[in-house]
Amino acid sequence: MRTLKLTLAYDGTNYAGWQRQANALSVQQVVEDAFAPLVNGVPPTVAGASRTDAGTHALGQVASVNAEIDLTPVAVQRALNVRLPFDIRVLGVVDATPGFHARFQAAGKSYRYRMITTPVMSPFDRFYAWHAPEPKRIELMQEAAALLVGTHDFASFQARGAFVRETVRTIERLDLRESGGEIVLECEGDGFLRHMVRAIAGTLAEIGTGLREPAAMREILEARDRKAAGATAPAHGLTLVAVKY
Amino acid sequence: MRTLKLTLAYDGTNYAGWQRQANALSVQQVVEDAFAPLVNGVPPTVAGASRTDAGTHALGQVASVNAEIDLTPVAVQRALNVRLPFDIRVLGVVDATPGFHARFQAAGKSYRYRMITTPVMSPFDRFYAWHAPEPKRIELMQEAAALLVGTHDFASFQARGAFVRETVRTIERLDLRESGGEIVLECEGDGFLRHMVRAIAGTLAEIGTGLREPAAMREILEARDRKAAGATAPAHGLTLVAVKY
Repeated sequence: MRTLKLTLAYDGTNYAGWQRQANALSVQQVVEDAFAPLVNGVPPTVAGASRTDAGTHALGQVASVNAEIDLTPVAVQRALNVRLPFDIRVLGVVDATPGFHARFQAAGKSYRYRMITTPVMSPFDRFYAWHAPEPKRIELMQEAAALLVGTHDFASFQARGAFVRETVRTIERLDLRESGGEIVLECEGDGFLRHMVRAIAGTLAEIGTGLREPAAMREILEARDRKAAGATAPAHGLTLVAVKY
Repeated sequence: MRTLKLTLAYDGTNYAGWQRQANALSVQQVVEDAFAPLVNGVPPTVAGASRTDAGTHALGQVASVNAEIDLTPVAVQRALNVRLPFDIRVLGVVDATPGFHARFQAAGKSYRYRMITTPVMSPFDRFYAWHAPEPKRIELMQEAAALLVGTHDFASFQARGAFVRETVRTIERLDLRESGGEIVLECEGDGFLRHMVRAIAGTLAEIGTGLREPAAMREILEARDRKAAGATAPAHGLTLVAVKY
């Protein structure tokens, strides 16, 4: 039995997220089904590092799979890409230490969130960025973002109904830059709660428009209550950029 | 009667090109239908500067329309964008000199053609670039492109069966640059024959892979025969960037 480490890019527009579901098409299911002919017809479990939401994209998702397979990593990559639709691509395959698990062993992840602030959004951004045309002051957003960097209890930014009880995470980097009517948020951390980056993006947008003060970010963290933070920004503005091990 | 000048961006993926057709959905038809409620329900003719092909995109298509309309240009823009699907956006509307015609009066156009040369193409490029993974030597392509700049008879680059008899055109600029596994061709000229940029892109790709010598470009021009040039590159790699008046 070998353990393979896959790096994947996908356009999440047409999928109900990474995770396999009973009644909707997921990226995981499509990748597992593409694997089936390589391993005697039974789709193996392909474990993704990040369970990206419906509509969320990936430039560097990492997944692990245990399989009895007699092909070189490059041959596995080619065979999968031949079978996969063009909105999912395997960027690389390598042999990993047996037992490697892409999610449990991930040491960190980075995400990008894009907001378009011009009155009209380019048709080429419609599936890849949030159209949030209210004028925003980036320096207020940056001031608030700085309060999130470090180790904090992010319970206020976890999706309602999420199961995770241990909500302390470390954000190593949370940068915002603006150019040409677009604000890009780049976020790197040891792990993220469900909807966390989207809730941070939504809250920062509210701070940018002046709806809240940057200093309110401290109280939001302290509240440990999802109701304290701002709205969850739409999933399609989010991209998983990379996973660190 | 007023003449309005519209600037439009569109993702051509879901359309049979700019020009209205009997049995397929065109960008022109969708824009004309969006106009109808503003002009007593009858769709006016919206004349586009470039009749982009099925799957070809636009960042700055220009169109003209004559209409009895009692709205400010900004109100027309808003009313159209409310009605249009998100893959077509009106970027601007201004009052033009009465009788202005976007196509007949265009003084020049610029196009961009993108080729991806890496073995695996990003899912985000699949509708916006041609996947042409054979290794290419950009300096050969640049040498050949230089032979096309200036005033020439481009009959060899006109689509088979095209009606235009006067095939002399001037290419003012034809630049190629390469970065990160992508070759971008930028072309500017006084006018382009049907499929001309795509035939140039396809021919330059053949020269880049070594299938033809750069100097062959001279003979191709002299032949004045579509069979002399290379294959027509796919429509979805092409974007109309701007129209000059």
